[in-house]
Amino acid sequence: MADSNERLDQWLRDAHAMEQQAEQMLDAQARRIENYPDLKLRIEKHIEETRSQKQRLEACLEARGVSPSGMKDMAGQFTAIMQSVGGIFAGDEVVKGVLASYFFEHMEIASYRILASAAQNAGDAETARVCEEICREEEAMASWLFEHIPAITQEYLTREVVSPQEAKR
Amino acid sequence: MADSNERLDQWLRDAHAMEQQAEQMLDAQARRIENYPDLKLRIEKHIEETRSQKQRLEACLEARGVSPSGMKDMAGQFTAIMQSVGGIFAGDEVVKGVLASYFFEHMEIASYRILASAAQNAGDAETARVCEEICREEEAMASWLFEHIPAITQEYLTREVVSPQEAKR
Repeated sequence: MADSNERLDQWLRDAHAMEQQAEQMLDAQARRIENYPDLKLRIEKHIEETRSQKQRLEACLEARGVSPSGMKDMAGQFTAIMQSVGGIFAGDEVVKGVLASYFFEHMEIASYRILASAAQNAGDAETARVCEEICREEEAMASWLFEHIPAITQEYLTREVVSPQEAKR
Repeated sequence: MADSNERLDQWLRDAHAMEQQAEQMLDAQARRIENYPDLKLRIEKHIEETRSQKQRLEACLEARGVSPSGMKDMAGQFTAIMQSVGGIFAGDEVVKGVLASYFFEHMEIASYRILASAAQNAGDAETARVCEEICREEEAMASWLFEHIPAITQEYLTREVVSPQEAKR
């Protein structure tokens, strides 16, 4: 039976692994985008945020006397999720990428909301504050994607008629 | 090379498969919940909405002269996603369920936003209207989950100390 503090430590480590995976995925995505400069720029900005989030989580773990390691199993989980998401929308790449990113941002939002609540429950105000702060950054990224979905979709569909290969990236 | 109408038809069928999968998952989730009556009730309400969404998509497909069938491959994709999501937060069940639902709602939100834009691009105003309408229902469900994440997490953590088995469901 886990108490509130053990559960919080466990979930903080999960979040750390999630950010590690997020960084890799965002990095791969940004490198492939060629013809959607605004999207590329926003993802690059979020890569910086993601690195900083990872560091802030490490500081929380350190303050709690917990090591962020031992999360090798988690990476596979996230890869499996993203591969499954990648199979959903057939045919294109950039629209799929936006869908997957939007989806992933919300996994992060829910995770940090759970974490902030668990940190409050465990009486760890600093960890709660950090998780709320990171949550707002994820929400900003998700909002950006939400706002830009229609334009990116239209751009993709318009390009696809002329040059399917160019439309993809 | 797909034109706007072919792409829209394809994506509408994807969305139909997504709702079919959503119905099954929500149904399984609601049946397992025992000690979180508000959550159970909200999920049951969303099961009704999901059934209606599936019918509205079928009407759109019918109006476009497209069959909703032939999407057998898709179900496996969604199952894979949900299984991967299920592996993320260790230990509990109800918190994991809320995380997975919140996550899935946002896949639906992004999908309908893409679809509404694709329908506009193809000049299908009625399909665009239906997709925007469904999108708002998914957003309402997602908002409800977002608002209730802290309380459900606290309730889970408090219960877990006393009775881990009861806390799970």
